[in-house]
Amino acid sequence: MLSVVLVGTGNVAEHLFHAFEDNEAVNVLAVMGRNALQQHPFGEKFLRHTNYENLPQADIYLLAVSDSAIAEVSERLSSDQRFLVHVSGATPMERIAGERKGVFYPLQTFTKGKTLDFKDIPILVEANSSELQTLLLELGKNISQTVQVVSSKKREKLHLAAVFANNFVNHLFAISETICIMEKVSFDLLKPLIYETAHKLETLTPKQAQTGPAKRGDMETMKKHLSQLNDNQTKDLYTLMSQAIQNYHEKEL
Amino acid sequence: MLSVVLVGTGNVAEHLFHAFEDNEAVNVLAVMGRNALQQHPFGEKFLRHTNYENLPQADIYLLAVSDSAIAEVSERLSSDQRFLVHVSGATPMERIAGERKGVFYPLQTFTKGKTLDFKDIPILVEANSSELQTLLLELGKNISQTVQVVSSKKREKLHLAAVFANNFVNHLFAISETICIMEKVSFDLLKPLIYETAHKLETLTPKQAQTGPAKRGDMETMKKHLSQLNDNQTKDLYTLMSQAIQNYHEKEL
Repeated sequence: MLSVVLVGTGNVAEHLFHAFEDNEAVNVLAVMGRNALQQHPFGEKFLRHTNYENLPQADIYLLAVSDSAIAEVSERLSSDQRFLVHVSGATPMERIAGERKGVFYPLQTFTKGKTLDFKDIPILVEANSSELQTLLLELGKNISQTVQVVSSKKREKLHLAAVFANNFVNHLFAISETICIMEKVSFDLLKPLIYETAHKLETLTPKQAQTGPAKRGDMETMKKHLSQLNDNQTKDLYTLMSQAIQNYHEKEL
Repeated sequence: MLSVVLVGTGNVAEHLFHAFEDNEAVNVLAVMGRNALQQHPFGEKFLRHTNYENLPQADIYLLAVSDSAIAEVSERLSSDQRFLVHVSGATPMERIAGERKGVFYPLQTFTKGKTLDFKDIPILVEANSSELQTLLLELGKNISQTVQVVSSKKREKLHLAAVFANNFVNHLFAISETICIMEKVSFDLLKPLIYETAHKLETLTPKQAQTGPAKRGDMETMKKHLSQLNDNQTKDLYTLMSQAIQNYHEKEL
């Protein structure tokens, strides 16, 4: 049985809490947060209010706090040779204060109140000792099928790749929705296409899956599309994305 | 029972063929193609080789040909007051020659050899007579739960929205994969994130779903990301996407 203290009450903390709660091999001893309101989903018995002094002794202290708070929070917890572990994709392990440190990064986007099956979520771990690395691999394997040791440098690049695959992709959905709203057609009509665009990657590489006017060099359609867009920034984005698609596919010829 | 002649043997033709074949209320009388090789998936009994003269009499002639071929193919088929119907998102109905014309556009991305359930695919229809519109609505409802009459103008805008939500999104997946390849980490690690990015739209709007450094104005992370990208075009794309996200979310404040 692994014991865990969860520091933080945000989105990631809440999802990790539920994953551990459903697992017999992990025992969450306490959840620590800055205010009482946010702690509600964790249940009364776990509440600890901004009290760094009376935290129980645990195998692992998981810091599910904002990236900018990792240094300060770990500084306050770094006594007693605790294993301090952050859950951030973009933050180097070394940002953690103290001597015994690690990373436990679930590579997923979490939505408040929407439960996900952790077994499908890759967990990337890192530690500055083999003892902690073993503990983190064990913790990960209790909840996920995909647990890998990944260095800070590689994890940061994966996080950058995730910005393209999630943040920027989602903004393209926003642009697509805006076009629908302006034309008074339902954005719902595009959702089956959006789901299939993602699920094509089950059988094809992005290169194989590419279609559309830019890929086939259909200048007439691209010119028409540009004339149909009102917003200059969206026009620029259309042009740059189309050029990027053409360059990427030309390289291969 | 509706009878259909399918003109074209490409990807969309093949998927439509299978959807109709599985349906008792639709009878595909013939598939017409330019060459024999491509016609294989349709079965021997349907073969007609570039023979415009001996096509059987059908309720609807579906032109599943490339956008640029619609005018010419419809010209050759426009005798005998046939109902000629294209399946293109980007092409106005008026591109069809003859007097009796319509559109039957399945809004989806099709992969060779990957069967999709047509009942989840929106079908947008249009016709220049109420008689053909009724036929197309009936044909659509036999295979899909979502069949709507949509004008050429609105359909073209939906097609533009689809370029953002599919073509450009897929290229962001390609960039994401490139970063993984360069860093020697598996792109598979990002796929659960990619699927969830799409499926978040089941419960959230794109605006609600947006996360990341651009959304929260995290200049430090954005600067670091730019320094980690080697390719100037990808840097430009990162900058433009981040600016677009910031503008979009500022507007609402």
